[in-house]
Amino acid sequence: MTDSVRDLTSRNKQIIKDSYDSYFTRRDLTFLAGVIAEDFVQHSPDAPSGRTAYLEHLAEAPFAGGTSSIKHLLADGDYVAVHHQMTLPGGDEEGLAVVDLWRLENGKIVEHWDVEQPVPDRARVPNGMF
Amino acid sequence: MTDSVRDLTSRNKQIIKDSYDSYFTRRDLTFLAGVIAEDFVQHSPDAPSGRTAYLEHLAEAPFAGGTSSIKHLLADGDYVAVHHQMTLPGGDEEGLAVVDLWRLENGKIVEHWDVEQPVPDRARVPNGMF
Repeated sequence: MTDSVRDLTSRNKQIIKDSYDSYFTRRDLTFLAGVIAEDFVQHSPDAPSGRTAYLEHLAEAPFAGGTSSIKHLLADGDYVAVHHQMTLPGGDEEGLAVVDLWRLENGKIVEHWDVEQPVPDRARVPNGMF
Repeated sequence: MTDSVRDLTSRNKQIIKDSYDSYFTRRDLTFLAGVIAEDFVQHSPDAPSGRTAYLEHLAEAPFAGGTSSIKHLLADGDYVAVHHQMTLPGGDEEGLAVVDLWRLENGKIVEHWDVEQPVPDRARVPNGMF
């Protein structure tokens, strides 16, 4: 691994961290508008491809106004994985366990995959899901 | 990042890759028995902590005898994330989208988290979930 790859990996991790902070904490889409590529490709069910359509979706999605608590953040080359607990406005406290996977190119988010699961009853996960 | 951290990250990635190959392709738990720590901590619902109990679970789990196709594999320090498509014996072809997150210490798997989601109808994911 070269120094430039390491620098890129760190930068990608920071871009994703700042994106979650922008969306879930500051409730501001401005940062995201600057880092999502115009021809962004979506693999998440019920969410669109393309920067403009995805930003509109994010403004109106069920989880808009919800919370996200990042539990693990991994970066490897062009990819960043975020393992987080997401709660929906008016939803239950445990919410969803989510892993988002993002691919970046030249500092822009170009592709997204995710997996979501409602956090089950504590009896089924003695150590908790996180 | 030092050379030793980079070496460790590569080694962790290989251990996890070999574990999936051992379990899903070679149908052999021997490799896993050697890399799971005795006091392994589980965060996956309905699966146990501890090496012995977890190996027994893996031998009898609904997905034993199923298939796994790894789509993305990320390693970052002590953590390895595996984004894969898993099918269950007798289950439908699309199966589940899964991200497993593993933490390793000194070449042993010490902790596991996961998120699972049935792959929905193609109409809901024009680009596919993977």
